[in-house]
Amino acid sequence: MPLKDYCFDGTRKLELRDMPTGAGEYRVRKGEYVDATNANMQRAAGLQEKLYASGEEGLIFALQARDAAGKDSLIKKVFGRLNPAGLKITGFETPGETDLAHDYLWRIMQAMPERGTIGVFNRSHYEDVLVVRVHQLQKQYRLAKRCLTDDFFERRYVQLNNWESYLWENGYRMVKIFLHVSREEQKQRFMDRMELKEKHWKLSVADMKERALWEAYDEAFETCINATATKVAPWYVLPADNKWYTRYLMSEILVKTLEEMHPQFPPLDPEEAAKIPAAMQELEREA
Amino acid sequence: MPLKDYCFDGTRKLELRDMPTGAGEYRVRKGEYVDATNANMQRAAGLQEKLYASGEEGLIFALQARDAAGKDSLIKKVFGRLNPAGLKITGFETPGETDLAHDYLWRIMQAMPERGTIGVFNRSHYEDVLVVRVHQLQKQYRLAKRCLTDDFFERRYVQLNNWESYLWENGYRMVKIFLHVSREEQKQRFMDRMELKEKHWKLSVADMKERALWEAYDEAFETCINATATKVAPWYVLPADNKWYTRYLMSEILVKTLEEMHPQFPPLDPEEAAKIPAAMQELEREA
Repeated sequence: MPLKDYCFDGTRKLELRDMPTGAGEYRVRKGEYVDATNANMQRAAGLQEKLYASGEEGLIFALQARDAAGKDSLIKKVFGRLNPAGLKITGFETPGETDLAHDYLWRIMQAMPERGTIGVFNRSHYEDVLVVRVHQLQKQYRLAKRCLTDDFFERRYVQLNNWESYLWENGYRMVKIFLHVSREEQKQRFMDRMELKEKHWKLSVADMKERALWEAYDEAFETCINATATKVAPWYVLPADNKWYTRYLMSEILVKTLEEMHPQFPPLDPEEAAKIPAAMQELEREA
Repeated sequence: MPLKDYCFDGTRKLELRDMPTGAGEYRVRKGEYVDATNANMQRAAGLQEKLYASGEEGLIFALQARDAAGKDSLIKKVFGRLNPAGLKITGFETPGETDLAHDYLWRIMQAMPERGTIGVFNRSHYEDVLVVRVHQLQKQYRLAKRCLTDDFFERRYVQLNNWESYLWENGYRMVKIFLHVSREEQKQRFMDRMELKEKHWKLSVADMKERALWEAYDEAFETCINATATKVAPWYVLPADNKWYTRYLMSEILVKTLEEMHPQFPPLDPEEAAKIPAAMQELEREA
């Protein structure tokens, strides 16, 4: 299945049940995909250096998924191969009191990478139309009643589209990734967390209770992705049951996006260039 | 001239040359206006306490003006009479390297007041369609060429309107103030700055050079105000030659806006209320 079939940019509708959660027929070719991932990451690292040198555009990946879908390991295994100097990883946990005393994009804006760097949001502004929607958390907010309209979430989708257009127009690209894990695979990963001591720190019984809301989350993801899939800020719905395959697809997206940005080392300023011969002479005299 | 005649909310067009810069006929009633300002500020302080207690809405005043129009003294003399615990004043000077490495709303978002408080922006996000436009500073930015379109500033107006709508929908009110000073009054204030030692710290010869661009700034202010005057984030064009009159109008706007927000002390939680008799008994036993 070519990369574009995982991509949603507003030109076609997502039906989540039609999307694979595993590598399927590609399972027999795991070795090839691991090699391709390695090659992609070398290429991505080269492009990242140019992006950093030019400083003209920023790139943000927003990762959204159910618990245990593999966001953390994707960051470690894929983004961990880039130069950390040009990388900014931010996790968005349950918002605190100070976060909730502001508009919901306030904490996101604190995490904006500088142009020239790659930002990764481990959860993101989309939490505010996912978990908030499923649990109707907005009803408990300390927020003027005039804001709690019936079309609260429809307005949020518009707000998110406007914000992402603004970023696009101001030198950023936003790419949104949904890690699509199956119910069976999530169960297995939760079991591992309970059985393995070195995975206990990731264990949360509250997370497991969210399984009872599986369909409500499916609907929230599908509605949200269809409402916010745009050319300037596309969504990718990636199968997440086989991590090596997810990593391969992520590395493809990384290379594709960086190539579209076409970063270039900036040329030397002619004034600086004119000083080079004298500077070389001075260094040579030192020896 | 009633307050509404200074207000631009998108329902009529601003022609800057039709707007007064001084108190005009009201000059003879200065004493009355000073008294009215005092009364307004008492009322505003009471409303501010309710706003703080309820925490359901935030209020932001964005002050824009030419140099020496009186932004600093307006903050000192009007906002200085509110409770500083519920007030957040932020000055936006020339953006630094870190600011310029981000989108232009990034530094503004850092300064967002919590809901329940009043924010004052001394200069604001509007600098990016005023000084940047007059001096065409965007051409020197380290920014992807795709962003530097012919409609760069028209797109910024749309971005600003979208952002202010977002804030409105998320529990904030933004009120934009343009202090309209005359060329003669500005000249006099610059003269004072040069003559009086205690005003030397405010002196900047670069500021004075902007006088040569008076018409270009007039056009930038007028275009910007007409493009961003909305019901949810109106502009007020206030005469700035007579400071007592500007303060009076500012105090009127403050009271009017706070009254529209209708802040209320939140009722005691019934569970907390039920604990009151026992808590009173315990305090009484202490004595």
